[in-house]
Amino acid sequence: MSNPTAAMLVIGDEILTGRTRDANMHYLAGELTGRGIRLCEARVVRDDHAAIVAAIRELSGAVDHLFTSGGIGPTHDDITADAVADAFGAAIDVREDARQILVEHYARTGLELNDARLRMARIPEGAALIDNPVSAAPGFTLRNVHVLAGVPAIFQAMVSSVLPTLTGGDPLLSQMIDVNRGEGEIAGPLKALAAQFPELEFGSYPYQRHGAHGTQLVVRGTDAGRLASAMVALSDLVKAP
Amino acid sequence: MSNPTAAMLVIGDEILTGRTRDANMHYLAGELTGRGIRLCEARVVRDDHAAIVAAIRELSGAVDHLFTSGGIGPTHDDITADAVADAFGAAIDVREDARQILVEHYARTGLELNDARLRMARIPEGAALIDNPVSAAPGFTLRNVHVLAGVPAIFQAMVSSVLPTLTGGDPLLSQMIDVNRGEGEIAGPLKALAAQFPELEFGSYPYQRHGAHGTQLVVRGTDAGRLASAMVALSDLVKAP
Repeated sequence: MSNPTAAMLVIGDEILTGRTRDANMHYLAGELTGRGIRLCEARVVRDDHAAIVAAIRELSGAVDHLFTSGGIGPTHDDITADAVADAFGAAIDVREDARQILVEHYARTGLELNDARLRMARIPEGAALIDNPVSAAPGFTLRNVHVLAGVPAIFQAMVSSVLPTLTGGDPLLSQMIDVNRGEGEIAGPLKALAAQFPELEFGSYPYQRHGAHGTQLVVRGTDAGRLASAMVALSDLVKAP
Repeated sequence: MSNPTAAMLVIGDEILTGRTRDANMHYLAGELTGRGIRLCEARVVRDDHAAIVAAIRELSGAVDHLFTSGGIGPTHDDITADAVADAFGAAIDVREDARQILVEHYARTGLELNDARLRMARIPEGAALIDNPVSAAPGFTLRNVHVLAGVPAIFQAMVSSVLPTLTGGDPLLSQMIDVNRGEGEIAGPLKALAAQFPELEFGSYPYQRHGAHGTQLVVRGTDAGRLASAMVALSDLVKAP
């Protein structure tokens, strides 16, 4: 596959203690797939400086784009920006362009731009700001790392700001077919079919619906013609007694 | 913290393409927290042998317990058992005790125990089986790696089989308080309070409810007395004008 690759790093104790169920990974996965960018790995780490730095270094070196989620707010547990700066040895301080965005936002809302809120203008040297149309405080891109907020509505808005700027690949197409048999019934022929279409990926996902077992077969790939041929063959396969 | 530590490895293209929203991570996080086992990291990797082997080696070496989810069914994309065996240089083949479980299950259901289904009896040498009361095909524990199914109902049943066998720690307690102010307002005093209770963790999570901004403050720790003291101080703090 020559499609661009991506990884995601979710940062936050609230996910790993079970307080919050992460929603951003699933959202980003769908958005990237639609643009032909292949999400290769996702990780969740704690609000721990060393853990975040290590994950950023490793993942950003392994893929074309790393997206992070969480840890860029005004409180003491928001340590992502400093960790990203450290990961690349970049200086970090309150930056004038980011500060100006906050000044205007808080002037408009009548709230005080205090020291805590000013932390949200700490941006690593060399980073480009990512627009936040929801609550103003910007994300940023440093090298191939896109640093986004954790609140889902803001995360999604920032994804919409970033994605159009990235080079996509051939969209990853998928087609599926539901079969009212257990996956053990069709595993053998499915494996043989998958071998005939090495450029496609065949997934098999069991489900239970109204008490009956069934299997959803999913075929994924970037070549629409081959995908169509595979679906014809798959239909024949599951029709067989 | 001297509580036991854990990591989770979710295996499956369906999560990373956005087809399926993972539910097992959130479930396991809650169960582990309740037993005083600290989930330090979670990862999602593709159905790729090398990626699974590398993640198993790294994570199992870093924590007391590694839990995996997915990839132990009958189809060609179910490659977790072989990857776990490879990660530790263990031999793997159809094992008689696991085969017997499948023989009885398929005799009962009237379905054929074909070659594909028999793959679910491939268990690494030295592993202990994990009971699957839902669909029979067992999970297994090899060293400190607990290999569980990806289907949420089966995953949860297997977690129930495994967790009582593990040594827990002091339960991680948490208390929370909702404040109808933005987190930027309370970030300063919250940071000062957190410094007074270094053995506790203070989290701050913004929310929007009925159009109004608010913040949920969460305090976590294993010492009930200190937690109670912190909550008293926190109530005073958020009452202040």
